[in-house]
Amino acid sequence: MTDANLHPSSPTIPFFERVAHAVNLKNNVSVAGLDPVMSLIPDSLKKSSIEATLVAYNTALIDSFYDIIPVVKLQLACYEAFGLEGMHAYVKTVAYAKQRGLLVIADAKRGDIGSTAARYAHAFLEAEGDFVADALTVNAYLGSDGVLPFIEQLVKSNTGIFVLVKTSNPSSGELQDLIVQDGRALYEVMADYVVDWGKQTTTDAFGYHQVGAVVGATYPDQLKTLRKRMPGSWLLLPGYGAQGAVAEQLAPAFNASGQGALVNASRSIMGAHAAKAYQSIASTLDGFAKATRMECETMLQTLNDARTQQPNK
Amino acid sequence: MTDANLHPSSPTIPFFERVAHAVNLKNNVSVAGLDPVMSLIPDSLKKSSIEATLVAYNTALIDSFYDIIPVVKLQLACYEAFGLEGMHAYVKTVAYAKQRGLLVIADAKRGDIGSTAARYAHAFLEAEGDFVADALTVNAYLGSDGVLPFIEQLVKSNTGIFVLVKTSNPSSGELQDLIVQDGRALYEVMADYVVDWGKQTTTDAFGYHQVGAVVGATYPDQLKTLRKRMPGSWLLLPGYGAQGAVAEQLAPAFNASGQGALVNASRSIMGAHAAKAYQSIASTLDGFAKATRMECETMLQTLNDARTQQPNK
Repeated sequence: MTDANLHPSSPTIPFFERVAHAVNLKNNVSVAGLDPVMSLIPDSLKKSSIEATLVAYNTALIDSFYDIIPVVKLQLACYEAFGLEGMHAYVKTVAYAKQRGLLVIADAKRGDIGSTAARYAHAFLEAEGDFVADALTVNAYLGSDGVLPFIEQLVKSNTGIFVLVKTSNPSSGELQDLIVQDGRALYEVMADYVVDWGKQTTTDAFGYHQVGAVVGATYPDQLKTLRKRMPGSWLLLPGYGAQGAVAEQLAPAFNASGQGALVNASRSIMGAHAAKAYQSIASTLDGFAKATRMECETMLQTLNDARTQQPNK
Repeated sequence: MTDANLHPSSPTIPFFERVAHAVNLKNNVSVAGLDPVMSLIPDSLKKSSIEATLVAYNTALIDSFYDIIPVVKLQLACYEAFGLEGMHAYVKTVAYAKQRGLLVIADAKRGDIGSTAARYAHAFLEAEGDFVADALTVNAYLGSDGVLPFIEQLVKSNTGIFVLVKTSNPSSGELQDLIVQDGRALYEVMADYVVDWGKQTTTDAFGYHQVGAVVGATYPDQLKTLRKRMPGSWLLLPGYGAQGAVAEQLAPAFNASGQGALVNASRSIMGAHAAKAYQSIASTLDGFAKATRMECETMLQTLNDARTQQPNK
């Protein structure tokens, strides 16, 4: 499989199988976050409208890493914050990323009652539509009937979801770490639902089902537990770079073959051009691209170290 | 206070105080859901584009009830499902509703880590911006640091939030009803956080703080418990009409003065024109308006019965 057929408009291959192929092809489990904040955009990329500026920035970022990064993640909040112009920029960015052969995760953390969840599934996971990505993050506080419409849709369109299980933020334990009557932590209850929901999807050529899980790399003990508890799920780990997780913390996320987890970095990649380490090269557009790519290469190396060190062999 | 100054562009009155004034003015605790689904839109309101059709439909609905209904709620999934055209229709609908003196809840159930939650708060609760409403529904599975950015914003802009506590759907108990180590149900844990978060906001002239809670009218026992547990919160109850809750189930939601809860109906109002009960009158545009208004009047009467019957006096 080549880069070009990872991303057909109506895929016939399950999402996480496409992820595994892309990861193998580029030997990289990195996810680059495309989460624009105006203060991080260099003047050289600023255009006459917000929409054009956001698109120019995202395009420059994608151009600098598309051949070494397999997946991008767009944080919807960063587009909604710019209103309609932001949403137009989201649509153009998703289209450009797909054109460059990247898989696209819409990080929207959607979740609602069944009939409404079906509308979100239509918005983000159907084969056609402005906002459609390859996968969506889902908040499952409402339980199974809020998740099943996503499952039904993703099976039809060969897309995927990542359910929030144990999030990376400092307060995540307030609810997620609570111990329930049968002795499980709430995040373990959620993980067990992920396993159940996964059974209702396609098992792909690599043995994974199509329900992934968001697990914070900032909680290494829980990460170890959850890796074992959801052996058929790809994990999506935010928290690299700006949020602080390092290679040895990430190692337990991978399975014996060094697969099964994607690691996201947003601020460290998007702000590489403004970082002290790259100050000497980043003053021009060519320098912006070099600084971004160098940060991606550093991340790639760190993550491949983590995959080698993983204790699950 | 008159209808006209309930909704200034930069309000100086806290959101839930504006709600109380609007409820008193119209003697009505109804919230009309504006959640368009193409199959419910009569041919007479269909235009040459999806955006124009959605706007025409919402405008006709608003025109039929704006003088008797205090609050509308827009389910973001129903707009995102139509892509960019849907979002343009959302923006125009919010503007028209405000112009008609209605308070607007964006039912988006957003929630994320702190820095991202701040972007959502900017998108939905700042004084300016395409998507800004008077209040937003929030999913707090991530804990306090995902909620506090909304609190900071709502205090500045006199907007409000409703945190999902016990949702109306059949599976809501899978996670929300779990009993944690100290004996509380998870929905009670969430309710206690709502009380804490509320303390960090303004207490208004009616004694309410500015953090509301979503509680399903479909679970009357939990509704009774949660009414007592969150005495300073306005509750938002989905589940009237299409989801099945009736007056006696709703009664416990109100406080001694018959205030403190808003009840939402979406499908029963939006589909009134197609309902058997209104079949004889709804065949024209004038009939559409009459059918919609009659359904709103029936709901008003039911809810005022519930407010009178409430056991909390």
